This record gives sequence, structure tokens and C-alpha cells, in this order.
Amino acid sequence: MFEEKLKELEPIFYPKSIAVVGSSAHSIKAGSIWVWSLVSAGFPGHIYPVGSRGGRIADLEIFPNLRMVPGEVDYVIVAIPRQSVLELLDDCAAKNVKAVQFFTAGFSEMDAQEGRRLEKQMLEKARQGNVRIIGPNCIGVYCPEHKIPFLMGTLGESGSVGFVSQSGGIATKLATTGIARRINYSKGVSFGNGIDLDASDFLEYLAADPKTRVIGAYLEGTRDGARLLRTMKAVAQVKPLVVWKGGRTEAGAQAALSHTGSLASSPAIWSAALKQAGAIQVNSLEELTDTLLVFQQLNSGQGTRAAIIGGLADGGGGISVSAGDACMDNGLKVPRLSLETRRELSRLLGEVGSILHNPVDVSQAQFRGLPALFQAVDSVTSDTAIDVVLIQEDMDILLPIYTWKGLEEINEFFIELRSRQDKPIIVVLPPGSAEPERLQLEQKLLAASIPVFCSMERAAKAICRLNQYACRQGAK
Amino acid sequence: MFEEKLKELEPIFYPKSIAVVGSSAHSIKAGSIWVWSLVSAGFPGHIYPVGSRGGRIADLEIFPNLRMVPGEVDYVIVAIPRQSVLELLDDCAAKNVKAVQFFTAGFSEMDAQEGRRLEKQMLEKARQGNVRIIGPNCIGVYCPEHKIPFLMGTLGESGSVGFVSQSGGIATKLATTGIARRINYSKGVSFGNGIDLDASDFLEYLAADPKTRVIGAYLEGTRDGARLLRTMKAVAQVKPLVVWKGGRTEAGAQAALSHTGSLASSPAIWSAALKQAGAIQVNSLEELTDTLLVFQQLNSGQGTRAAIIGGLADGGGGISVSAGDACMDNGLKVPRLSLETRRELSRLLGEVGSILHNPVDVSQAQFRGLPALFQAVDSVTSDTAIDVVLIQEDMDILLPIYTWKGLEEINEFFIELRSRQDKPIIVVLPPGSAEPERLQLEQKLLAASIPVFCSMERAAKAICRLNQYACRQGAK
Repeated sequence: MFEEKLKELEPIFYPKSIAVVGSSAHSIKAGSIWVWSLVSAGFPGHIYPVGSRGGRIADLEIFPNLRMVPGEVDYVIVAIPRQSVLELLDDCAAKNVKAVQFFTAGFSEMDAQEGRRLEKQMLEKARQGNVRIIGPNCIGVYCPEHKIPFLMGTLGESGSVGFVSQSGGIATKLATTGIARRINYSKGVSFGNGIDLDASDFLEYLAADPKTRVIGAYLEGTRDGARLLRTMKAVAQVKPLVVWKGGRTEAGAQAALSHTGSLASSPAIWSAALKQAGAIQVNSLEELTDTLLVFQQLNSGQGTRAAIIGGLADGGGGISVSAGDACMDNGLKVPRLSLETRRELSRLLGEVGSILHNPVDVSQAQFRGLPALFQAVDSVTSDTAIDVVLIQEDMDILLPIYTWKGLEEINEFFIELRSRQDKPIIVVLPPGSAEPERLQLEQKLLAASIPVFCSMERAAKAICRLNQYACRQGAK
Repeated sequence: MFEEKLKELEPIFYPKSIAVVGSSAHSIKAGSIWVWSLVSAGFPGHIYPVGSRGGRIADLEIFPNLRMVPGEVDYVIVAIPRQSVLELLDDCAAKNVKAVQFFTAGFSEMDAQEGRRLEKQMLEKARQGNVRIIGPNCIGVYCPEHKIPFLMGTLGESGSVGFVSQSGGIATKLATTGIARRINYSKGVSFGNGIDLDASDFLEYLAADPKTRVIGAYLEGTRDGARLLRTMKAVAQVKPLVVWKGGRTEAGAQAALSHTGSLASSPAIWSAALKQAGAIQVNSLEELTDTLLVFQQLNSGQGTRAAIIGGLADGGGGISVSAGDACMDNGLKVPRLSLETRRELSRLLGEVGSILHNPVDVSQAQFRGLPALFQAVDSVTSDTAIDVVLIQEDMDILLPIYTWKGLEEINEFFIELRSRQDKPIIVVLPPGSAEPERLQLEQKLLAASIPVFCSMERAAKAICRLNQYACRQGAK
């Protein structure tokens, strides 16, 4: 499906050469930053800076205009004032450019009448010249595999998650959150006002892209709702599609109109459309990244019967109580452990101060030694009444008791346990007063396919979304 | 009100001397950790370690039993096995001890019959000997002013927020979160099974305590619901009372039973009781600390008409859109700015790429310079249509554009603006890839009475709770 889209947009995600119009040797303009970003990210193709005053930037010659660039140009990034964009589109046609991305803003998102008129003229010129437009008012493409960063230059590892975002700010946030939480992207795109290529085109591309396994989207509105609904429906048939709709409330919709010129439909209409399309609906950046993380790291939903292991250090009882509430509030089941498991826990940890039910409070392990703790966790994980194991680790409480070395040993056991069996293990690491250690631990666990969340609520919600998707797939 | 409680519990929060029963010169036991914690926190009174094998710890003599301690003992911390607690209570009575806190666990939370029998005997002995009991199964008192830390030893600054927590884990988390987010406590207490002194007693104490202005509570259950309801009602009359009830769901209630021996009532009954009492109900540690933070830092609710300032750097439009959604979803109003303010913003920032409505996108400030940004924020803050200003700062986007120096300058302006007028300013600093810088900035803002949150949702929710309380107070 959508195989033609794959070919059509190939020059956008894998261009052999990129020109950056609006580069300057002397002042820090967006165009100049883009040139530096591409160079420092190690973009493997030709980079051609273009700027009327010439000179050099990042050891590259700046060409006074696009037509003077010596080689072929697949893709053009544009950061010049809007009054020059029509002329530039003529240059693009003359150079046989495949696609042009306009960082330039000030169109329909600013004033409806004049902005829309100009957008219409741009579109006509692009069609005549056989050039595709991304934007205007956008930051374009992010492709770690082909070393194309967003404006700010940081690139994460290449992976299996694709995203589209109408907003450049949210797109940048998706990219940086991805780096922080090891959500590794195949590619992403921010398309702003989307006057030519829009959400539907990019979603079709990602559905066909063999590198992409899961798709996330931040959308504010669309000019062609019927097509978007059709596309989402088709895309969700082949890959998980997680959608965050911005501008659901009056204040959000007002901002969306000024931001990408989007006329929002009512939240109820959007919500119904997403449901009908089989998309997974989320309501914030946190929910979007949490959901992408579990889809990336866990093969499929394996059920919602959760074991909660809390109280890795003394006093964890209250944390177990609230973890139980958080899981059940957000859709997980917290079943009774089997008699056999409870007997084993009682043997390993004793009864005093321990909670041998579920949530399991393993605080007695601090007096019984790590082998007892490891056996207890192993035994809970093996329980056939359990589909997924959630472990709450609180650095503020753990570090003083176990020290960093002990903590490393404990987490190496979790990693080893994860590697030798199929049941998902999730770690909840709430923020506190030992942030550097917490972040270090998070990276280790993430690298070993153990998703990490900063609260039990968020973990439970994400696991439930993964399972809802799996159930729907199974029901087909 | 409750003046007698203030006197009655004085030896608990301000003891002149503390004995720690269960100290050891040679092995790391809870009692030994407690002695070290008190010493390193700088507890100003006498510390008397007690342990059957004698010896020395932290340069202090360990007395073989409590009766051998030479001086008077106000307060005793107990970390010995449960079979010795009755004898210890005889010693306490003989030494005229005022209050004894049992870290010792294994009572009604473990097995209902034998545990409850022992608890009853303890209570009888305590009444006969005129000794008050805190616990068993608890970590007792936290009092920064009098240098009494919890088991783990870290002490925050002394402040105006008091708390009670049935759970030691949650109490520890409240203390460490307080240190991280500058929620400064007058005192806190964790009372576990609460067989003698319980939530009601400590709430009455905090209500009367002149050092405490706001009260937070984590409760799992109570043995005397009618008294607790009466107490909460009376306490909420004089100070804001924020209550998190753990064990609302089946899984949570199961854990609560094993944790503090609490028999939970239905969530609906609790919720109704809290409402009737005039308490502010929250559902997680995050909500509890967020709410305590705004109560501590803002004098009162000053209204819910919010201005949202987003897009401090380019591409912030989508962040403004989602911020608008988050605020309205959680109860804030996001009204239109006055014509005058909008004209001023337009003059300062131009129209291209900016959102001059509310949410306000000030991304153009990066091209117009900091003075334009400062004037824009000033003008939004002065708008009479606005009660509270929420500023979203994203380090991932801001740092590359403004550098750390620019960011400091911007935030010094926010601090200066806050200091010269009365309207609350709130900063939202979402986590990302520049955590050390983010945490540093958070500390600076918090120190200047600017509450900081990691998401717009959480900020909006906390402000609304503050305002609901203010409205109820006003309606009396």
C-alpha cells in the first residue's frame, strides 16, 4: 500500500543534495544555522548554501542565487522573507528541484486573506514547475539515518518510530525527548501550514516505509478532513498510529488558527474520527511519547494483568498502596498472585513488614540480602496469573540503603531477567533529589528494552494503550 | 483551637533528649542509622543510643538498656523485634518518657489476630505508664527546625508546610521532594498503624502550631472515622488541608490492609467525607506536592483567568496550542487580552509568526531582542483581564538559541517582574535533554516565589485548587 508515495517522497527524506536559501557569511540567520546543523550532523550529500551577498560559511561557498549552484539540487530549505518566495519557486523549477521546504512564515496563519492568496500562487507555481512544497511555516525533515537534523542540529539514533507534526516546536520536542528516552526515529517531518504535501501524504509515506514500525502524529487541523480520515484508516490497518490532536479546547483552537492557519473541528468530531480510523488517541506530549516508547520497546500487548513490585527499600508500603491505585485507575488489572508464588515470597521474605499480596512489598529484602530479592522478583514474574511486571524504584529511598553499587547490581538483575524471558518488565523511576543517578539508570534500562516511566500512572496508561491496540488487531 | 494539643505533643516535635533503642556498635541496624542521622543532622538535645551489647556509636556510649540512661528522656525511637516491645514500655514508664515511636513492625498489618492483641497490650501499658505511642510500623517525626530527620538523615529548610502520613515511604518522599522543590516544612510525621496518636491528633497539633500555615496529609484508613471527619472539618476551618487518600481501588485497599492494617471505606465515602470536611482532595504524590507548593508560594488564589506565554523560541506555536488545551482541560480560563495589550504586542513583536492572542507566542522576540520580549511579558502581566501568568520555557529549544547566559537574563527578568507586582507568575519547565541546567533554573525561580512545574497540566490543576479554596473561604 502507498508504494508510489515511497518513491515520490524519496528525495525529501533521502536527498542527494540540499540547498539552503537564506544563508549568510556574517549574521546568524536561520539559514546559516541550518547549514551548520547539516554540516555538523554529517549529512552525506552535497550542501549548497545560497545567499545574495555570497561569501563562505562552514568552509562552503555561498552561491548568490539558486540557479548558480553547479550541481543538481534535490531538496531546498528556504529561510527568506515571504516577498521573495514566488521568485524562488521559479528558480527551483529552473533547477529541476524535487521539493522545497519553507521555514519562511507569515502566510495564512497570520492574515487569512493576503496569506491565502500568496499560498495559492505558490502552489500554482510549484505545480507548474513540478516541485513539491513542505510548509510554509515549518521546520521540515528529521532523518537520523540520512543525517538530516532539525534546525537545532541534534540527531538521535536511527530507529523504527516515524512521526509527523504540524508544529515545529512539538516536532523539535519529539526529537529531543526521543534522544532523552531512547525513542529512536526512522524519520519525522514538521509540515506547518501544509499547503501542498500535508499530514495525509506523510502518513502514507510512513505507512509504506519499511524502516517505520510505529507512527506518531501531532495534528492541529486539516484542509481536507475526508482525505485525512481515509488515510488514517488505511494507515492504522498496517501500523500502530498514535495521534495527538492539538487545539481541542477554545484556547487551543484559537492558538491553532494563528499558528498553522488551521480551522479546528469540534473535539467530539475529531475524537470520533480518530476512533473510527482505528488510531490511538492521546492528549499530551507525555502521553504521545510514553505510547511510542512502549510500542517501540515491547513487541505487542501481552495482557493487562499486572504485578506491582514496590518497597524495594523500607517504608515502601505506602508506595505500593498508591501504585495499586494508579494501576487500577488507569485500566490495568492487579490480580491475586498464585498460592505457590505467595508461599515462595513468604519463604524468601518472611511476613513481617512485607506485603505478600499484589502489590508486593519487598522491603524485607534489605535484611535478607539480594539473592532473596532476586528470587522473589523472579517468582512473581513467572506467575502465570501475571502478564506484565511493574517495578517501582525510588532513588531517594534506595540510594542511602543499597548505595549506587547495590543499585547497579539490582538493575543488572532486572536486565538479565528481561533478557531470558518474554514477559515485559517496566520500571517506574520517579524524580527526586538524585537526578544524575536516576537519569543514568534510566538510560541503562532503556537500552535493555525495559521501558522507564516517571510515574506509575503514566506507565499504566501506556501499557493499556498498547494492549487495546493488540486486542483490536486480534479481533480483526 | 487545639491549644492543649500543642502542649501535649511538644515533647514529640521538640524533645530535649532522644533515646534510640536498637542501636549497635557493630552491625548496620535501623537503630544505628537513626543515631547517625540525628548526629549528622545536628540534633541539639541529648542523644542516648541503647543496645543490649553496649559499646560506642558516633562517639556516644551505648547503654545496655533504657533504665540505665543517666539523664531524662523525652522521646524514644524503637527499632527492636516485636517480642520485646512490652518490656520496653515498662522501661519507658519507669524513665518517665513522654512519647515512644515504634519503627518495629509486624503487628495488625501482618496478622490481624495476634497483631491486634499485642497492640492492645501495648496501648494498655502506655496508658498506665502515661506514655504516648507513635506507630507501631512507622518512621515518626521530621522537624527541620529542631533538626530531627527521618531515618535517612536528609533535612530540608524549615518552613510553613506541615504534613502527616500514615506511610513512611510516602513521608520520606514528601521530605525529599520538599528538598528538591523547595517545599519547606514546619514539621511532618509518619504514624503507621496509629494505635494511640493518630491522624486526628497530629492534624489538631498542626492546626494549632503557629509555625504551620498549610497542611498536607496522606491517609490510608482510620479506626475512628467519625473523629477524623470532625477533626478535618475543624482543621480545614483554620488552615488549608490537602488530603491524598491511598487505597481507593481494590488493589490499593488490599495493599493498605497489609501495610498499616487499615480497613478502607469505599472511595465514594471518603470522597464525600473530604468534601464535607472542606478538605482539598488530591490523588497522587505529584498532586499533593504541586498543591502544597502553590499554597506555600502564593498568598492566595487570585483568580483563574490565565495568560499563557509560549514560544519563547521559534516553533513555540504548537506548544502554545497544547498549553491552551491543558489549561482549559484543567479548569483555568484563557481569556482574550485587552485591545491595548494586543496592540502593544503587535508593536513589539510584529505579526509574522507570532500569536498575539492568548496563548501568546513570543517567538519573534528572538529576532527583536530581549527588551522587546521583556516589554511584551510586562504588558501581558499588567493586563487587567488576567489574574495569573503562565510561562512555558523549554530548555531544549531555548538553550541553543539564547545560550545559558541569555536564559539567565530572561529568568532574572521574570524574577524582577514577580518582585515588583502582585500577580502570580508560574513557570513550566518540561524535562528534556538539558536536565542539569533545567534543575538549576528551577531552584532559582523557586527561591524567588515563582512556582515551577514540569507540565502545564499540573500547573493548571494546582492553581485551580488554590483558587477553589480561596473561593470557599470567601463564601463563608
